[in-house]
Amino acid sequence: MASYKIALIQMTVTPDKDENMETAARLVHEAAAGGAKIVCLPEIWNCPYEVKLFAGYAEPADGPAVELMSDLARQNEVFLVGGTIPEISGEKTPDGAAKVYNTSFVFDPSGAPLAKHRKSHLFDIAIEGGLHFRESDFFAVGGQPDGTLFETDFGTVGLAVCFDVRFPEMFRKMTEGGAHLIFLPAAFNMTTGPAHWEILAKSRALDNQVFFAACAPARNTKTRFIAYGHSCVVTPWGEYCAAADSRETVLYATIDKGYMEKVRAELPIGH
Amino acid sequence: MASYKIALIQMTVTPDKDENMETAARLVHEAAAGGAKIVCLPEIWNCPYEVKLFAGYAEPADGPAVELMSDLARQNEVFLVGGTIPEISGEKTPDGAAKVYNTSFVFDPSGAPLAKHRKSHLFDIAIEGGLHFRESDFFAVGGQPDGTLFETDFGTVGLAVCFDVRFPEMFRKMTEGGAHLIFLPAAFNMTTGPAHWEILAKSRALDNQVFFAACAPARNTKTRFIAYGHSCVVTPWGEYCAAADSRETVLYATIDKGYMEKVRAELPIGH
Repeated sequence: MASYKIALIQMTVTPDKDENMETAARLVHEAAAGGAKIVCLPEIWNCPYEVKLFAGYAEPADGPAVELMSDLARQNEVFLVGGTIPEISGEKTPDGAAKVYNTSFVFDPSGAPLAKHRKSHLFDIAIEGGLHFRESDFFAVGGQPDGTLFETDFGTVGLAVCFDVRFPEMFRKMTEGGAHLIFLPAAFNMTTGPAHWEILAKSRALDNQVFFAACAPARNTKTRFIAYGHSCVVTPWGEYCAAADSRETVLYATIDKGYMEKVRAELPIGH
Repeated sequence: MASYKIALIQMTVTPDKDENMETAARLVHEAAAGGAKIVCLPEIWNCPYEVKLFAGYAEPADGPAVELMSDLARQNEVFLVGGTIPEISGEKTPDGAAKVYNTSFVFDPSGAPLAKHRKSHLFDIAIEGGLHFRESDFFAVGGQPDGTLFETDFGTVGLAVCFDVRFPEMFRKMTEGGAHLIFLPAAFNMTTGPAHWEILAKSRALDNQVFFAACAPARNTKTRFIAYGHSCVVTPWGEYCAAADSRETVLYATIDKGYMEKVRAELPIGH
Protein backbone atom coordinates (compact mmCIF):
# COMPACT_ATOMS: atom_id res chain seq x y z
CA MET A 1 0.00 0.00 0.00
CA ALA A 2 1.48 3.30 -1.08
CA SER A 3 0.06 5.38 1.72
CA TYR A 4 -2.47 5.19 4.52
CA LYS A 5 -3.89 7.34 7.27
CA ILE A 6 -3.20 7.26 11.01
CA ALA A 7 -4.83 9.21 13.83
CA LEU A 8 -3.59 10.38 17.22
CA ILE A 9 -6.23 10.80 19.93
CA GLN A 10 -5.23 13.91 21.89
CA MET A 11 -7.96 13.43 24.52
CA THR A 12 -8.76 15.24 27.73
CA VAL A 13 -8.07 13.04 30.74
CA THR A 14 -10.00 13.66 33.96
CA PRO A 15 -10.15 11.96 37.38
CA ASP A 16 -13.37 10.21 36.22
CA LYS A 17 -12.32 6.84 34.83
CA ASP A 18 -15.66 6.16 33.18
CA GLU A 19 -15.57 9.54 31.48
CA ASN A 20 -12.06 8.76 30.18
CA MET A 21 -13.28 5.45 28.78
CA GLU A 22 -16.19 7.23 27.08
CA THR A 23 -13.90 9.90 25.63
CA ALA A 24 -11.47 7.33 24.30
CA ALA A 25 -14.28 5.34 22.71
CA ARG A 26 -15.92 8.40 21.14
CA LEU A 27 -12.68 9.66 19.61
CA VAL A 28 -11.46 6.27 18.38
CA HIS A 29 -14.81 5.84 16.60
CA GLU A 30 -14.37 9.33 15.13
CA ALA A 31 -10.82 8.55 13.96
CA ALA A 32 -11.89 5.33 12.28
CA ALA A 33 -14.82 7.10 10.62
CA GLY A 34 -12.27 9.62 9.42
CA GLY A 35 -10.35 6.90 7.61
CA ALA A 36 -7.53 6.14 10.03
CA LYS A 37 -6.18 2.58 9.81
CA ILE A 38 -3.94 2.83 12.87
CA VAL A 39 -5.21 4.82 15.84
CA CYS A 40 -3.14 5.79 18.88
CA LEU A 41 -4.25 6.84 22.37
CA PRO A 42 -2.04 8.97 24.65
CA GLU A 43 0.08 7.92 27.63
CA ILE A 44 -1.98 7.24 30.80
CA TRP A 45 -5.34 7.96 29.20
CA ASN A 46 -7.53 6.33 31.85
CA CYS A 47 -6.40 8.35 34.88
CA PRO A 48 -4.71 11.63 35.81
CA TYR A 49 -0.93 11.52 35.46
CA GLU A 50 -0.13 11.67 39.16
CA VAL A 51 1.99 9.18 41.06
CA LYS A 52 -0.31 9.07 44.10
CA LEU A 53 -3.33 8.27 41.94
CA PHE A 54 -1.91 5.51 39.74
CA ALA A 55 -2.66 2.69 42.22
CA GLY A 56 -6.38 3.54 42.30
CA TYR A 57 -6.68 3.30 38.52
CA ALA A 58 -4.28 0.44 37.77
CA GLU A 59 -5.75 -2.64 36.10
CA PRO A 60 -4.58 -6.10 35.14
CA ALA A 61 -4.21 -7.02 31.47
CA ASP A 62 -7.73 -8.51 31.51
CA GLY A 63 -9.30 -5.43 33.08
CA PRO A 64 -11.95 -3.08 31.64
CA ALA A 65 -9.52 -0.67 29.91
CA VAL A 66 -7.87 -3.46 27.95
CA GLU A 67 -11.27 -4.95 27.18
CA LEU A 68 -12.48 -1.59 25.89
CA MET A 69 -9.41 -1.15 23.69
CA SER A 70 -9.84 -4.60 22.20
CA ASP A 71 -13.51 -3.85 21.52
CA LEU A 72 -12.65 -0.51 19.90
CA ALA A 73 -10.10 -2.13 17.60
CA ARG A 74 -12.52 -4.87 16.59
CA GLN A 75 -15.60 -2.66 16.19
CA ASN A 76 -13.69 -0.18 14.04
CA GLU A 77 -11.43 -2.70 12.29
CA VAL A 78 -8.34 -0.66 13.06
CA PHE A 79 -4.97 -1.33 14.58
CA LEU A 80 -5.13 0.33 17.99
CA VAL A 81 -2.02 1.48 19.85
CA GLY A 82 -3.62 1.76 23.25
CA GLY A 83 -1.65 4.66 24.68
CA THR A 84 -0.72 3.47 28.15
CA ILE A 85 -2.45 2.52 31.36
CA PRO A 86 -1.01 1.53 34.74
CA GLU A 87 -0.84 -2.27 34.37
CA ILE A 88 -1.00 -4.57 37.41
CA SER A 89 1.28 -7.39 36.37
CA GLY A 90 1.53 -10.92 37.70
CA GLU A 91 5.10 -10.18 38.83
CA LYS A 92 5.92 -9.33 42.43
CA THR A 93 8.24 -6.73 43.96
CA PRO A 94 10.74 -7.85 46.67
CA ASP A 95 8.07 -6.75 49.17
CA GLY A 96 5.52 -9.12 47.66
CA ALA A 97 3.37 -6.39 46.08
CA ALA A 98 2.27 -6.64 42.46
CA LYS A 99 4.64 -4.84 40.09
CA VAL A 100 2.87 -2.12 38.15
CA TYR A 101 4.10 -1.07 34.71
CA ASN A 102 3.30 1.89 32.48
CA THR A 103 2.15 -0.26 29.60
CA SER A 104 1.04 0.22 26.03
CA PHE A 105 -1.17 -2.57 24.69
CA VAL A 106 -1.60 -2.94 20.94
CA PHE A 107 -4.54 -4.65 19.21
CA ASP A 108 -5.09 -5.82 15.66
CA PRO A 109 -8.32 -5.12 13.73
CA SER A 110 -9.87 -8.33 15.08
CA GLY A 111 -9.34 -7.05 18.62
CA ALA A 112 -6.62 -9.59 19.35
CA PRO A 113 -3.58 -8.48 21.38
CA LEU A 114 -0.68 -7.82 19.01
CA ALA A 115 2.10 -6.34 21.16
CA LYS A 116 2.84 -4.77 24.53
CA HIS A 117 5.48 -2.18 25.41
CA ARG A 118 6.23 -1.47 29.04
CA LYS A 119 7.90 1.93 29.44
CA SER A 120 11.56 1.12 29.88
CA HIS A 121 12.96 4.49 30.95
CA LEU A 122 11.00 6.13 33.76
CA PHE A 123 10.53 9.87 34.17
CA ASP A 124 12.10 11.30 37.30
CA ILE A 125 12.61 15.04 37.45
CA ALA A 126 13.54 17.46 40.22
CA ILE A 127 13.93 20.98 38.85
CA GLU A 128 15.30 23.42 41.42
CA GLY A 129 12.34 25.62 42.37
CA GLY A 130 10.19 23.87 39.78
CA LEU A 131 8.63 20.58 38.75
CA HIS A 132 9.22 17.51 40.90
CA PHE A 133 7.90 14.14 39.76
CA ARG A 134 9.15 10.62 40.43
CA GLU A 135 7.49 8.02 38.25
CA SER A 136 9.95 5.43 39.56
CA ASP A 137 8.34 5.71 43.01
CA PHE A 138 5.41 3.76 41.60
CA PHE A 139 6.17 2.08 38.29
CA ALA A 140 8.57 -0.79 37.65
CA VAL A 141 11.01 -0.45 34.76
CA GLY A 142 9.82 -2.34 31.69
CA GLY A 143 12.66 -4.44 30.38
CA GLN A 144 12.37 -3.48 26.73
CA PRO A 145 15.32 -1.15 26.01
CA ASP A 146 15.23 -2.02 22.29
CA GLY A 147 11.63 -0.85 21.95
CA THR A 148 8.77 -2.99 20.66
CA LEU A 149 7.92 -3.92 17.08
CA PHE A 150 4.69 -5.26 15.63
CA GLU A 151 3.49 -6.18 12.17
CA THR A 152 0.58 -4.47 10.45
CA ASP A 153 -0.97 -4.60 6.99
CA PHE A 154 1.18 -1.57 6.23
CA GLY A 155 4.54 -2.89 7.40
CA THR A 156 6.50 -3.07 10.63
CA VAL A 157 5.69 -0.46 13.27
CA GLY A 158 7.70 0.52 16.35
CA LEU A 159 6.48 1.51 19.81
CA ALA A 160 8.03 3.23 22.81
CA VAL A 161 6.62 5.34 25.64
CA CYS A 162 7.36 8.97 26.56
CA PHE A 163 10.73 9.20 28.40
CA ASP A 164 12.03 6.36 26.21
CA VAL A 165 12.32 9.05 23.52
CA ARG A 166 15.48 10.39 25.17
CA PHE A 167 17.33 7.20 24.28
CA PRO A 168 18.19 7.28 20.57
CA GLU A 169 19.59 3.75 20.76
CA MET A 170 16.06 2.37 21.17
CA PHE A 171 14.83 4.09 18.02
CA ARG A 172 17.86 2.97 16.02
CA LYS A 173 17.14 -0.63 17.05
CA MET A 174 13.51 -0.38 15.97
CA THR A 175 14.58 1.12 12.64
CA GLU A 176 17.12 -1.63 12.11
CA GLY A 177 14.29 -4.05 12.89
CA GLY A 178 12.35 -2.65 9.95
CA ALA A 179 10.04 -0.02 11.46
CA HIS A 180 8.84 2.61 8.96
CA LEU A 181 6.70 4.34 11.61
CA ILE A 182 7.24 4.61 15.36
CA PHE A 183 4.52 5.53 17.85
CA LEU A 184 5.24 7.28 21.13
CA PRO A 185 2.33 7.71 23.55
CA ALA A 186 3.75 10.47 25.76
CA ALA A 187 2.66 12.97 28.38
CA PHE A 188 5.24 15.73 28.47
CA ASN A 189 4.74 18.57 30.94
CA MET A 190 4.91 22.36 30.92
CA THR A 191 8.65 22.32 31.74
CA THR A 192 10.14 19.77 29.34
CA GLY A 193 7.36 20.15 26.77
CA PRO A 194 8.21 23.64 25.52
CA ALA A 195 11.95 22.94 25.92
CA HIS A 196 12.32 19.47 24.43
CA TRP A 197 9.22 17.99 22.78
CA GLU A 198 9.77 19.26 19.24
CA ILE A 199 13.52 18.61 19.23
CA LEU A 200 13.08 15.05 20.40
CA ALA A 201 10.21 14.21 18.07
CA LYS A 202 11.97 15.65 15.03
CA SER A 203 15.35 14.14 15.82
CA ARG A 204 14.03 10.60 16.35
CA ALA A 205 12.39 10.79 12.91
CA LEU A 206 15.35 12.47 11.24
CA ASP A 207 18.05 10.26 12.78
CA ASN A 208 16.32 7.19 11.45
CA GLN A 209 14.50 8.52 8.39
CA VAL A 210 11.21 7.07 9.65
CA PHE A 211 7.79 8.50 10.39
CA PHE A 212 7.41 9.33 14.08
CA ALA A 213 4.04 9.84 15.77
CA ALA A 214 3.87 11.20 19.33
CA CYS A 215 0.45 11.16 21.00
CA ALA A 216 -0.13 13.30 24.09
CA PRO A 217 -3.15 13.96 26.28
CA ALA A 218 -4.89 17.32 25.79
CA ARG A 219 -3.94 20.01 28.28
CA ASN A 220 -6.22 19.93 31.31
CA THR A 221 -5.37 22.74 33.72
CA LYS A 222 -7.72 21.31 36.35
CA THR A 223 -5.40 18.38 37.05
CA ARG A 224 -2.23 18.64 39.13
CA PHE A 225 0.02 17.42 36.32
CA ILE A 226 -0.58 19.67 33.33
CA ALA A 227 0.17 17.98 30.01
CA TYR A 228 1.87 19.92 27.23
CA GLY A 229 -0.26 18.42 24.46
CA HIS A 230 1.17 19.14 20.99
CA SER A 231 0.75 15.66 19.54
CA CYS A 232 2.61 15.49 16.26
CA VAL A 233 3.65 13.36 13.33
CA VAL A 234 7.11 13.93 11.85
CA THR A 235 8.27 12.84 8.39
CA PRO A 236 11.51 10.97 7.63
CA TRP A 237 12.92 14.36 6.51
CA GLY A 238 12.40 15.70 10.04
CA GLU A 239 9.48 18.05 9.52
CA TYR A 240 5.97 18.03 10.93
CA CYS A 241 3.33 16.60 8.65
CA ALA A 242 0.75 17.11 11.41
CA ALA A 243 0.90 19.00 14.69
CA ALA A 244 -1.74 19.82 17.30
CA ASP A 245 -1.92 22.65 19.80
CA SER A 246 -2.86 21.84 23.40
CA ARG A 247 -6.61 21.21 22.92
CA GLU A 248 -8.53 17.97 22.54
CA THR A 249 -8.42 16.81 18.93
CA VAL A 250 -8.08 13.87 16.60
CA LEU A 251 -4.87 14.49 14.65
CA TYR A 252 -4.64 12.77 11.27
CA ALA A 253 -1.58 12.17 9.14
CA THR A 254 -0.83 10.30 5.95
CA ILE A 255 2.02 7.81 6.10
CA ASP A 256 3.68 7.47 2.71
CA LYS A 257 6.34 4.80 2.56
CA GLY A 258 7.28 5.93 -0.94
CA TYR A 259 8.27 9.29 0.51
CA MET A 260 10.39 7.53 3.13
CA GLU A 261 12.17 5.57 0.41
CA LYS A 262 12.76 8.80 -1.53
CA VAL A 263 14.34 10.52 1.50
CA ARG A 264 16.54 7.50 2.16
CA ALA A 265 17.69 7.38 -1.46
CA GLU A 266 18.38 11.11 -1.63
CA LEU A 267 20.31 11.35 1.64
CA PRO A 268 21.62 7.87 2.43
CA ILE A 269 22.63 7.12 6.01
CA GLY A 270 23.08 3.40 5.66
CA HIS A 271 19.60 1.85 5.62
CA MET B 1 37.58 25.42 36.68
CA ALA B 2 33.93 26.36 37.00
CA SER B 3 33.54 27.86 33.57
CA TYR B 4 35.59 28.99 30.60
CA LYS B 5 35.13 30.55 27.20
CA ILE B 6 35.31 28.94 23.76
CA ALA B 7 35.12 30.53 20.32
CA LEU B 8 33.94 29.30 16.95
CA ILE B 9 35.56 30.86 13.89
CA GLN B 10 32.79 31.27 11.31
CA MET B 11 35.16 32.42 8.57
CA THR B 12 34.66 33.18 4.90
CA VAL B 13 36.38 30.59 2.75
CA THR B 14 37.49 31.58 -0.76
CA PRO B 15 39.38 29.83 -3.58
CA ASP B 16 42.53 31.71 -2.44
CA LYS B 17 44.37 29.39 -0.05
CA ASP B 18 46.70 32.10 1.25
CA GLU B 19 43.76 34.35 1.97
CA ASN B 20 42.06 31.52 3.88
CA MET B 21 45.23 31.02 5.94
CA GLU B 22 45.33 34.76 6.70
CA THR B 23 41.66 34.83 7.65
CA ALA B 24 42.03 31.84 9.95
CA ALA B 25 45.09 33.39 11.61
CA ARG B 26 43.44 36.79 12.06
CA LEU B 27 40.29 35.36 13.61
CA VAL B 28 42.05 32.86 15.88
CA HIS B 29 44.16 35.74 17.22
CA GLU B 30 40.96 37.73 17.74
CA ALA B 31 39.27 34.83 19.54
CA ALA B 32 42.22 34.34 21.87
CA ALA B 33 42.38 38.07 22.58
CA GLY B 34 38.68 37.81 23.39
CA GLY B 35 39.43 35.29 26.11
CA ALA B 36 38.65 31.97 24.40
CA LYS B 37 40.60 29.00 25.77
CA ILE B 38 39.48 26.55 23.09
CA VAL B 39 39.08 27.85 19.54
CA CYS B 40 37.49 25.93 16.67
CA LEU B 41 37.81 26.45 12.91
CA PRO B 42 35.11 25.25 10.46
CA GLU B 43 35.08 22.20 8.20
CA ILE B 44 37.28 22.57 5.07
CA TRP B 45 38.52 26.04 5.94
CA ASN B 46 41.48 26.15 3.56
CA CYS B 47 39.62 25.56 0.30
CA PRO B 48 36.15 25.79 -1.24
CA TYR B 49 33.93 22.86 -0.36
CA GLU B 50 33.82 21.29 -3.81
CA VAL B 51 34.76 17.72 -4.64
CA LYS B 52 36.64 18.63 -7.83
CA LEU B 53 38.80 21.16 -5.99
CA PHE B 54 39.81 19.13 -2.94
CA ALA B 55 42.82 17.49 -4.64
CA GLY B 56 44.40 20.84 -5.46
CA TYR B 57 44.26 21.98 -1.84
CA ALA B 58 44.97 18.71 -0.01
CA GLU B 59 48.04 18.61 2.21
CA PRO B 60 49.92 16.03 4.21
CA ALA B 61 49.95 16.22 8.00
CA ASP B 62 53.22 18.14 7.89
CA GLY B 63 51.95 20.68 5.35
CA PRO B 64 51.51 24.45 5.73
CA ALA B 65 47.92 24.35 7.04
CA VAL B 66 48.84 22.04 9.90
CA GLU B 67 51.96 24.09 10.58
CA LEU B 68 49.88 27.26 10.72
CA MET B 69 47.38 25.70 13.12
CA SER B 70 50.15 24.51 15.41
CA ASP B 71 51.67 28.00 15.36
CA LEU B 72 48.31 29.62 16.10
CA ALA B 73 47.71 27.34 19.09
CA ARG B 74 51.21 28.01 20.46
CA GLN B 75 51.26 31.76 19.82
CA ASN B 76 47.88 32.21 21.46
CA GLU B 77 48.26 29.53 24.11
CA VAL B 78 44.90 28.02 23.24
CA PHE B 79 43.60 24.59 22.44
CA LEU B 80 42.86 24.71 18.72
CA VAL B 81 40.33 22.40 17.07
CA GLY B 82 41.56 22.89 13.53
CA GLY B 83 38.27 22.56 11.67
CA THR B 84 39.11 20.21 8.82
CA ILE B 85 41.35 20.16 5.77
CA PRO B 86 41.72 17.56 3.03
CA GLU B 87 44.56 15.43 4.43
CA ILE B 88 46.85 13.45 2.13
CA SER B 89 47.56 10.36 4.21
CA GLY B 90 50.39 7.86 3.92
CA GLU B 91 47.82 5.14 3.15
CA LYS B 92 47.10 3.99 -0.37
CA THR B 93 43.88 3.19 -2.22
CA PRO B 94 43.63 -0.12 -4.15
CA ASP B 95 44.73 1.90 -7.21
CA GLY B 96 47.94 2.99 -5.50
CA ALA B 97 46.84 6.62 -5.01
CA ALA B 98 47.21 8.35 -1.65
CA LYS B 99 44.06 8.12 0.45
CA VAL B 100 42.73 11.57 1.30
CA TYR B 101 40.69 12.13 4.47
CA ASN B 102 38.54 15.00 5.66
CA THR B 103 40.52 15.50 8.84
CA SER B 104 40.32 17.60 11.97
CA PHE B 105 43.68 18.15 13.68
CA VAL B 106 43.71 19.31 17.29
CA PHE B 107 46.58 21.14 19.00
CA ASP B 108 47.36 21.89 22.61
CA PRO B 109 48.48 25.34 23.82
CA SER B 110 52.13 24.42 23.19
CA GLY B 111 51.28 23.75 19.55
CA ALA B 112 51.74 20.00 19.93
CA PRO B 113 49.32 17.66 18.12
CA LEU B 114 46.72 16.41 20.58
CA ALA B 115 44.19 14.46 18.50
CA LYS B 116 42.97 13.83 14.99
CA HIS B 117 39.47 12.95 13.80
CA ARG B 118 38.94 11.77 10.26
CA LYS B 119 35.32 12.23 9.19
CA SER B 120 33.80 8.79 9.49
CA HIS B 121 30.46 9.26 7.74
CA LEU B 122 30.73 10.95 4.36
CA PHE B 123 28.13 13.28 2.89
CA ASP B 124 26.50 11.99 -0.27
CA ILE B 125 23.27 13.63 -1.35
CA ALA B 126 21.19 13.50 -4.52
CA ILE B 127 18.02 15.51 -4.12
CA GLU B 128 15.62 15.10 -7.04
CA GLY B 129 15.81 18.38 -8.95
CA GLY B 130 18.14 19.82 -6.30
CA LEU B 131 21.51 19.48 -4.64
CA HIS B 132 23.85 16.72 -5.77
CA PHE B 133 27.14 16.20 -3.95
CA ARG B 134 29.24 13.07 -3.47
CA GLU B 135 31.97 13.53 -0.91
CA SER B 136 32.70 9.81 -1.11
CA ASP B 137 33.93 10.29 -4.70
CA PHE B 138 37.04 11.89 -3.22
CA PHE B 139 37.45 11.26 0.50
CA ALA B 140 38.18 7.96 2.20
CA VAL B 141 36.04 7.02 5.21
CA GLY B 142 37.83 7.74 8.48
CA GLY B 143 37.57 4.68 10.68
CA GLN B 144 36.50 6.46 13.86
CA PRO B 145 32.80 5.64 14.33
CA ASP B 146 33.02 6.23 18.09
CA GLY B 147 34.23 9.80 17.60
CA THR B 148 37.45 11.22 19.01
CA LEU B 149 38.20 12.34 22.55
CA PHE B 150 41.00 14.54 23.85
CA GLU B 151 41.97 15.89 27.22
CA THR B 152 42.15 19.60 28.00
CA ASP B 153 42.72 21.68 31.13
CA PHE B 154 38.93 21.90 31.30
CA GLY B 155 38.11 18.22 31.01
CA THR B 156 37.51 15.68 28.28
CA VAL B 157 36.32 17.05 24.93
CA GLY B 158 34.76 15.18 22.00
CA LEU B 159 35.18 15.74 18.28
CA ALA B 160 33.31 14.67 15.16
CA VAL B 161 32.88 16.17 11.69
CA CYS B 162 29.70 17.34 9.94
CA PHE B 163 27.75 14.33 8.59
CA ASP B 164 28.91 12.33 11.62
CA VAL B 165 26.25 14.35 13.49
CA ARG B 166 23.53 12.14 12.00
CA PHE B 167 24.78 9.15 13.96
CA PRO B 168 23.70 9.53 17.59
CA GLU B 169 25.67 6.41 18.56
CA MET B 170 28.92 8.32 18.06
CA PHE B 171 27.88 11.09 20.43
CA ARG B 172 26.66 8.64 23.05
CA LYS B 173 30.05 6.93 22.95
CA MET B 174 31.89 10.21 23.42
CA THR B 175 29.62 11.12 26.31
CA GLU B 176 30.19 7.73 27.92
CA GLY B 177 33.90 8.40 27.46
CA GLY B 178 33.55 11.51 29.60
CA ALA B 179 33.09 14.37 27.13
CA HIS B 180 31.41 17.45 28.61
CA LEU B 181 31.70 19.37 25.34
CA ILE B 182 31.68 18.08 21.76
CA PHE B 183 32.93 20.06 18.77
CA LEU B 184 31.57 19.56 15.28
CA PRO B 185 33.32 21.42 12.45
CA ALA B 186 30.61 21.24 9.81
CA ALA B 187 29.65 22.78 6.47
CA PHE B 188 25.95 22.26 6.00
CA ASN B 189 24.35 23.56 2.81
CA MET B 190 21.27 25.53 1.82
CA THR B 191 19.16 22.34 1.57
CA THR B 192 19.95 20.42 4.74
CA GLY B 193 20.97 23.52 6.71
CA PRO B 194 17.54 25.12 7.07
CA ALA B 195 15.90 21.68 7.38
CA HIS B 196 18.20 19.85 9.81
CA TRP B 197 20.99 21.93 11.35
CA GLU B 198 19.18 23.18 14.45
CA ILE B 199 17.42 19.87 15.14
CA LEU B 200 20.66 17.90 14.93
CA ALA B 201 22.71 20.35 16.99
CA LYS B 202 20.12 20.59 19.74
CA SER B 203 19.38 16.88 19.85
CA ARG B 204 23.02 15.81 20.14
CA ALA B 205 23.38 18.15 23.14
CA LEU B 206 20.04 17.20 24.67
CA ASP B 207 20.36 13.42 24.17
CA ASN B 208 23.63 13.44 26.05
CA GLN B 209 23.26 16.45 28.35
CA VAL B 210 26.56 17.88 27.08
CA PHE B 211 27.60 21.17 25.51
CA PHE B 212 27.69 20.91 21.73
CA ALA B 213 29.56 23.38 19.51
CA ALA B 214 29.07 23.30 15.74
CA CYS B 215 31.39 25.52 13.69
CA ALA B 216 30.48 26.32 10.08
CA PRO B 217 32.08 28.47 7.40
CA ALA B 218 30.42 31.81 6.73
CA ARG B 219 28.09 31.90 3.74
CA ASN B 220 29.93 32.80 0.56
CA THR B 221 27.53 33.05 -2.35
CA LYS B 222 30.43 33.38 -4.80
CA THR B 223 31.41 29.74 -4.36
CA ARG B 224 29.61 26.83 -5.97
CA PHE B 225 28.84 25.15 -2.65
CA ILE B 226 27.01 27.68 -0.50
CA ALA B 227 27.44 27.08 3.21
CA TYR B 228 24.51 27.58 5.57
CA GLY B 229 26.61 29.16 8.33
CA HIS B 230 24.70 29.39 11.62
CA SER B 231 27.49 28.19 13.90
CA CYS B 232 26.06 27.52 17.32
CA VAL B 233 26.69 26.32 20.83
CA VAL B 234 23.96 24.32 22.56
CA THR B 235 23.65 23.74 26.31
CA PRO B 236 23.04 20.36 27.98
CA TRP B 237 19.39 21.46 28.33
CA GLY B 238 19.14 21.64 24.53
CA GLU B 239 18.97 25.38 24.00
CA TYR B 240 21.29 27.74 22.16
CA CYS B 241 23.70 29.66 24.35
CA ALA B 242 25.23 31.21 21.25
CA ALA B 243 24.11 31.24 17.63
CA ALA B 244 25.40 33.06 14.56
CA ASP B 245 23.64 34.10 11.39
CA SER B 246 25.33 33.41 8.05
CA ARG B 247 28.02 36.12 8.17
CA GLU B 248 31.68 35.95 9.14
CA THR B 249 32.03 36.18 12.89
CA VAL B 250 33.81 34.92 15.97
CA LEU B 251 31.13 33.27 18.09
CA TYR B 252 31.88 33.06 21.81
CA ALA B 253 30.21 30.89 24.42
CA THR B 254 30.79 30.15 28.08
CA ILE B 255 31.04 26.49 29.00
CA ASP B 256 29.86 25.91 32.55
CA LYS B 257 30.31 22.37 33.78
CA GLY B 258 28.38 23.21 36.93
CA TYR B 259 25.34 23.91 34.78
CA MET B 260 25.80 20.56 33.06
CA GLU B 261 25.89 18.81 36.43
CA LYS B 262 22.73 20.67 37.48
CA VAL B 263 20.85 19.56 34.35
CA ARG B 264 21.99 15.97 34.83
CA ALA B 265 20.89 15.99 38.47
CA GLU B 266 17.52 17.58 37.71
CA LEU B 267 16.61 15.29 34.81
CA PRO B 268 18.67 12.11 35.18
CA ILE B 269 19.13 9.93 32.11
CA GLY B 270 21.73 7.59 33.54
CA HIS B 271 25.06 9.47 33.51
